[in-house]
Amino acid sequence: MNESLTARLRIKPGQHVKLARHDPDFTGPFTNKKDAKDATKKNLDKLFELQYKMYAENKHSLLVVLQAMDTAGKDGLIRHVMTGMNPQGCHVTSFKKPSERELDQDYLWRIHQAVPAKGEVGIFNRSHYEDVLVVRVHDLVPKTVWSKRYEEINQFEHYLASTGMTIVKIFLHISKNEQKQRLQARLDDPLKHWKFSPADLGERKHWNEYMRAYEDALSKCSTPHAPWYVIPANEKWFRNYAVSQILVDTMSRLRMSWPKPTFDPKDIKIV
Amino acid sequence: MNESLTARLRIKPGQHVKLARHDPDFTGPFTNKKDAKDATKKNLDKLFELQYKMYAENKHSLLVVLQAMDTAGKDGLIRHVMTGMNPQGCHVTSFKKPSERELDQDYLWRIHQAVPAKGEVGIFNRSHYEDVLVVRVHDLVPKTVWSKRYEEINQFEHYLASTGMTIVKIFLHISKNEQKQRLQARLDDPLKHWKFSPADLGERKHWNEYMRAYEDALSKCSTPHAPWYVIPANEKWFRNYAVSQILVDTMSRLRMSWPKPTFDPKDIKIV
Repeated sequence: MNESLTARLRIKPGQHVKLARHDPDFTGPFTNKKDAKDATKKNLDKLFELQYKMYAENKHSLLVVLQAMDTAGKDGLIRHVMTGMNPQGCHVTSFKKPSERELDQDYLWRIHQAVPAKGEVGIFNRSHYEDVLVVRVHDLVPKTVWSKRYEEINQFEHYLASTGMTIVKIFLHISKNEQKQRLQARLDDPLKHWKFSPADLGERKHWNEYMRAYEDALSKCSTPHAPWYVIPANEKWFRNYAVSQILVDTMSRLRMSWPKPTFDPKDIKIV
Repeated sequence: MNESLTARLRIKPGQHVKLARHDPDFTGPFTNKKDAKDATKKNLDKLFELQYKMYAENKHSLLVVLQAMDTAGKDGLIRHVMTGMNPQGCHVTSFKKPSERELDQDYLWRIHQAVPAKGEVGIFNRSHYEDVLVVRVHDLVPKTVWSKRYEEINQFEHYLASTGMTIVKIFLHISKNEQKQRLQARLDDPLKHWKFSPADLGERKHWNEYMRAYEDALSKCSTPHAPWYVIPANEKWFRNYAVSQILVDTMSRLRMSWPKPTFDPKDIKIV
């Protein structure tokens, strides 16, 4: 049942994604918040243990890429799902507008520096996918440049996967109307003012172009070694549950084990 | 009551520390594990909120330095107390034996690169204090070099504090006998073998020299802007409680507030 939810949300390699066919209100097996929160809590306990084993075994690593439109809940997801992780062995990297220094390097340079080490979980809040999203929507480089990037990204991710990294890519999918309500809520609640940026309104005007850019990224870059998942995210509690379930399923499949000692415990005497 | 526990565990500037006078079995107001765990849980909820405010306000930062002998519980403390933090805005850096590249730089170079940014919590699992601990015990540099470092460290930390960083330094204090029991437990339990390193036994032989080196570091480097705390750590549940309480007290004193908007919400219309 749950594994089938994970499979259902995964984009199959070669699948042509039309986001209009993915219902952002979908809540899977749940009809209410409480059941979903209880199930999420259980997954977080499992994640804590799975991460501990990954850290102890020091063999695999996990990279979680998060992409979404503004207000779709990247920060909230990290706050509510990733807080179940031990921060020793879990690093979040937020990729903002590149610095001048970063712009002088190739676009994967800063990404590569932030990938998780063996035993670690790395979470990317935005990522190299911005280089085929915001960069494309705002014509920051010519089409001849960005259109080659899908293949470059696939090769880069394939290389990382071949070194022992498990890659999971998450797109939080909300409707345009849901974004409107969330932006309004940030304006209406003084405690949320700090989350509002007038620049978000400018991006909202490009909603349709972003959807097309996402559809291309999801269609061209969901591979067996680095699949994309489209997460219905209008309901925050389902969003949190779905991602926690995907992470549990993904880490469970690694068949990790506690490392064997390199010494014979019987030979050791502590004085 | 609680604030007074924090004050009691803090080393006063100029105080001459004799670790033999600090009881590693002390459990403060608690006589049993359950009460301490309940109190710790409450503190973790407070920490989660305080950290969120720090992140939102984007003004202060918090640096937590952890030092201890092997098995005293640095990793366990991070696993049980820092897991309450949102990993977005909380970075753990483990300082291991310096690389050749790092040895070609001054000893504070790699430390400075890892300090938290505004709005963030940084946790150091070991730190620049190893440069007056392991380096001193094993004569890795001449005494003329390491003996100047206490003052250099005080000046470095004073500079960081002046930029808005709050610094809390934690020494987890266990007895030599407790270490013996914990090392034996790692040998006896196959699931803990991976935590055992035969090299730890070599360090254990230098126990008394380490205690003297710690006493000097605690005595010379507990300052108003970067105090040391000596945490009785034979009981893991008291260790976790005490550190959670110190962090809550420290962050509460910052009098943080939610940031004000730089725009007038009434002027904005979302379409």
